[in-house]
Amino acid sequence: MLDAADPVQLTQALVRCPSVTPAEGGALALLAETLAKAGFDVHRPVFSAPGTPDVVNLYARIGEGAPCLVFAGHTDVVPEGDPSRWTHGAFSGDIVDGRLFGRGACDMKGGVAASVSAVLRHLAACGGRPARGSIAFLITGDEEGPAVNGTVKLLAWARERGERFDHCILGEPTNPDALGDMIKIGRRGSLTGHIAVEGKQGHVGYPHLADNPIPRMVKLLAALTATPLDEGTPFFAPSNLEVTTVDVGNPTSNIIPGAARATFNIRFNDLWTPQTLEAEIRSRLANAGAGDTWTARFEPTNAVAFLTEPGPFVELVSEAVAAATGRTPQLSTTGGTSDARFIKDHCPVLEFGLVGQTMHQVDENVAVADIVGLTAIYEGVLARYFAAF
Amino acid sequence: MLDAADPVQLTQALVRCPSVTPAEGGALALLAETLAKAGFDVHRPVFSAPGTPDVVNLYARIGEGAPCLVFAGHTDVVPEGDPSRWTHGAFSGDIVDGRLFGRGACDMKGGVAASVSAVLRHLAACGGRPARGSIAFLITGDEEGPAVNGTVKLLAWARERGERFDHCILGEPTNPDALGDMIKIGRRGSLTGHIAVEGKQGHVGYPHLADNPIPRMVKLLAALTATPLDEGTPFFAPSNLEVTTVDVGNPTSNIIPGAARATFNIRFNDLWTPQTLEAEIRSRLANAGAGDTWTARFEPTNAVAFLTEPGPFVELVSEAVAAATGRTPQLSTTGGTSDARFIKDHCPVLEFGLVGQTMHQVDENVAVADIVGLTAIYEGVLARYFAAF
Repeated sequence: MLDAADPVQLTQALVRCPSVTPAEGGALALLAETLAKAGFDVHRPVFSAPGTPDVVNLYARIGEGAPCLVFAGHTDVVPEGDPSRWTHGAFSGDIVDGRLFGRGACDMKGGVAASVSAVLRHLAACGGRPARGSIAFLITGDEEGPAVNGTVKLLAWARERGERFDHCILGEPTNPDALGDMIKIGRRGSLTGHIAVEGKQGHVGYPHLADNPIPRMVKLLAALTATPLDEGTPFFAPSNLEVTTVDVGNPTSNIIPGAARATFNIRFNDLWTPQTLEAEIRSRLANAGAGDTWTARFEPTNAVAFLTEPGPFVELVSEAVAAATGRTPQLSTTGGTSDARFIKDHCPVLEFGLVGQTMHQVDENVAVADIVGLTAIYEGVLARYFAAF
Repeated sequence: MLDAADPVQLTQALVRCPSVTPAEGGALALLAETLAKAGFDVHRPVFSAPGTPDVVNLYARIGEGAPCLVFAGHTDVVPEGDPSRWTHGAFSGDIVDGRLFGRGACDMKGGVAASVSAVLRHLAACGGRPARGSIAFLITGDEEGPAVNGTVKLLAWARERGERFDHCILGEPTNPDALGDMIKIGRRGSLTGHIAVEGKQGHVGYPHLADNPIPRMVKLLAALTATPLDEGTPFFAPSNLEVTTVDVGNPTSNIIPGAARATFNIRFNDLWTPQTLEAEIRSRLANAGAGDTWTARFEPTNAVAFLTEPGPFVELVSEAVAAATGRTPQLSTTGGTSDARFIKDHCPVLEFGLVGQTMHQVDENVAVADIVGLTAIYEGVLARYFAAF
């Protein structure tokens, strides 16, 4: 009989659900049962879109009105790859030498379990219901996949129902080395662009009859990175552009090629929007001395840079981390993108979870002590939150 | 009954031989029979090399000692491609509206036929043998193919036999638009190089953990073409470098790639040897600001720039062209490479032949009047040569 207030037992139970995106694998059913038993109003909306699999999501809320503190996360996991490379079964949840093994252990079934267990403990201490305000869970089954039938639709669905959130903690694994290292208070945006340069194919012996696009591509790429995009901001590193590929594909060394292609990706800070960034890039390309024989195409992006300004909420979480770990967490905006970029349109959001070193790897694992520690931190957050807001 | 002194008949007969490299197709047999009948000492050495087909070549000589004027050429042709695209059969030799159609018509069975017919006429006027000196033919069946069992080996074979040549005319189609436009008195060299830049693959969100090779490749390629290699020389255009491909092959826009590759080809004039040019390129690469994370590899080349200095021989041929066409031919070193780059190690060589507009194309053809005109030019060369040298 599972004791859901024990985060280690709950993590094991979730890891044993084979919830590789888009499969629910029993993970959301387990959470739904657990939260319903604790008095939550639980919903499991299924979202669909052409060309993508249907995905189950979970929304649960207890208590009335504001303030509403939300724990967000996902129970879907990336595939385990070659099972024979795992020392412990990818869906075993085995504990060996103080570490719990399995796909999703740190990314992020352990984080989801810690938040559920922390809330159950908090509610037990309060007599079963929040003394004031409310607590909610937004758990998706489509974070590691196409991310079309997940958090974006779940947030829209909740808003449609009239749900209002005041603050959110997303339990992604944010700590590089040790529990307490790092809170993420924002994320950079991401913008991908493609450059095409047209020329005229011909024989290298007769260059006046051809038009080589490569020297112009070289000028364009040099212009892209000639000067930094910015110097960074108090909580963001400088925006960074990486040319990710350049391709001509001409196998014949006596032929001048007719076209060249390149792709770049920019991780940008809160000084930019995708629109201002595209304008800056187009300006750099136009002034590269490559004439007008190039075209640039930018992929649509929903990865906009955002920052949850440090203030009472961030301080409260930092204090809870420090109280449980003795560490003062760094406030960071590094790394890739996360579902926080969608949540930030609904309420202030920060991210704090387990140690991410083994995420997506063979033998993904997490220290049992960190699951317990993270649960204590979330309990500390709950206590401080409902005292402060 | 073929009259080999009629260059139009002889061109038709050669075009009707299906001598697509490496097939002899009866073309060299026809020439051997024709030249033997005219009193030439004729040889048809067959050369072999591992991994390439055996190829028949032809060497013929009449007369004794110096001066020896050589006519060089090839009877092999490139494939006809899709026969249904030809208006006239690729091996028909049909004459329509004053033009002779078929693969090799201008490149260069028509040129070979003109030289043979011109020599037969010259000999007939001299009573059957050169009044002094000698006349030779170096005809290969491996110019359009691997070029391994052709002119290089035929020249070595002849040198081994003690044959000595004083001047050579290679009958490749040298005229861009009209017979008499252009004599080629040299050719540029060709050097191909490959650049590899190594980096370290990683996620674009964590650029400090990766090392993108593309910015360094951009610097290297920019350095290659930043300044001209030279300004050209009296008979050569400036040396020209073309980057022919750049390839990374990274399909994923959130991955920083681990390596980049590029290839370039240089057509260089007589200011350079492959060795001095490689040294210059390596110096440019070393000073490109790309550190030492790149490697450059140069393909071995036998395409060295050469020039047959204008002088009595070139003037004599120019006069023969002007006398037959009313045009003063341009002395040029443009275009790709040719077998002249091998012949120049044995004797001064120039190139003059038909109009090359349709070479290697569907419906390759040549004006009948140009075959007749080229024969008259070669006759003029023979008369002037043995009067002057």
